[in-house]
Amino acid sequence: MNGFDSFPVQPIKLYRFFLSGHSHRVELFLSLLKLPYELVDIDLVAKAHKQPEFLALNPFGQVPVIQDGDITLADSNAILVYLASNYDSGAQWLPREPIMAASVQRWLSVAAGPLAFGPAAARRLKLFVTSAKAEEEMARAKNLFDVMENHLKNSLFLVGDVPTIADIANYTYTAYAPEGGISLDPYPVLRGWLQRIESMPGFVSMAKSPLGLACHFSVLKSHLFSAKE
Amino acid sequence: MNGFDSFPVQPIKLYRFFLSGHSHRVELFLSLLKLPYELVDIDLVAKAHKQPEFLALNPFGQVPVIQDGDITLADSNAILVYLASNYDSGAQWLPREPIMAASVQRWLSVAAGPLAFGPAAARRLKLFVTSAKAEEEMARAKNLFDVMENHLKNSLFLVGDVPTIADIANYTYTAYAPEGGISLDPYPVLRGWLQRIESMPGFVSMAKSPLGLACHFSVLKSHLFSAKE
Repeated sequence: MNGFDSFPVQPIKLYRFFLSGHSHRVELFLSLLKLPYELVDIDLVAKAHKQPEFLALNPFGQVPVIQDGDITLADSNAILVYLASNYDSGAQWLPREPIMAASVQRWLSVAAGPLAFGPAAARRLKLFVTSAKAEEEMARAKNLFDVMENHLKNSLFLVGDVPTIADIANYTYTAYAPEGGISLDPYPVLRGWLQRIESMPGFVSMAKSPLGLACHFSVLKSHLFSAKE
Repeated sequence: MNGFDSFPVQPIKLYRFFLSGHSHRVELFLSLLKLPYELVDIDLVAKAHKQPEFLALNPFGQVPVIQDGDITLADSNAILVYLASNYDSGAQWLPREPIMAASVQRWLSVAAGPLAFGPAAARRLKLFVTSAKAEEEMARAKNLFDVMENHLKNSLFLVGDVPTIADIANYTYTAYAPEGGISLDPYPVLRGWLQRIESMPGFVSMAKSPLGLACHFSVLKSHLFSAKE
């Protein structure tokens, strides 16, 4: 349909951090599309993402980044759009019809905005900055999940009854919100949606933080270093 | 090219607030595309966006929202994607080639993320919550503008030398960052990019806040009410 459908000649490199939900979005989508990929771990604790070598890949100094042949791309949403445009000939994951395309875009905006600065930020503060108060982030999360809970009463996935990259972009930080102290107990419909994603063939999960809600940075740090080869 | 190119049978309704940069993005794009539109003012100060009538249009309770015939759409990025997909047959504003599409998406993520939670949030705090400290938002703005300044050394617009919806999505809150106390003086390349957008045929500006940096909420409020019919 798009004239660009193809298959990577070599595995796609995914520069990621194993606790980064933004990275996980991309890994999940690569896996669901059954594309060959290899993981390159970037040690955020050692600030590898702020070194010139990595900044040359992404001036924003953030994971994830992919390299597909001679193409280098940053930003999880942008990568999802690229992968869907290039490797999903059926255009299921990123529909082209204007209203459907806009509906997917709306949820990509949510993923880049209130999800990133709500539940994801609350989790990051819990994991890395134990003394921080995440009140604003938790209020944002609650507002967002209230809207999602209602929205998902009308369809199986965020845009209609078939999964799109909107679901991929919003899955991880919703699923891992409890690590930021935000319970999903009040959101049965939202949990049903998470389960539908988790039951897809090719689903891969992100490492649960072994530290949970009682996490301390020093513990995380020693865990991270022990996890490195 | 997309098979959906058309022209609205009646003016597109844009629900907006006159100081909202997210609303202005949409108005700017409607104007650049020479589409017929009418503005519907939503009084954010009177909380009109949190009333059931408006929440039926957008459960997130945010401007902008458009109505194009029987289609109702919220989220400025989603609206830009819809308008480009539907009314720009040449696909200049939203290229379909995967790498170009992903590059545009990246900047839509910036507009929904660090721009919204950086310069836009700093400005909102200055305009509406005079006692708030916007340190985090201002740091985010500085990081973002540093990256944009460098990025724009390589091309006339955010994605190549032709404007796309990436530029529209990022224009307003960059241009109005000084209202949030963030000077653009250190960013000559960024200012050149703003000027290129401002010199396009059909450009429309957002109302400058008459209150500038010394703004107080009470003054703003009286201004808002006096501006209403």
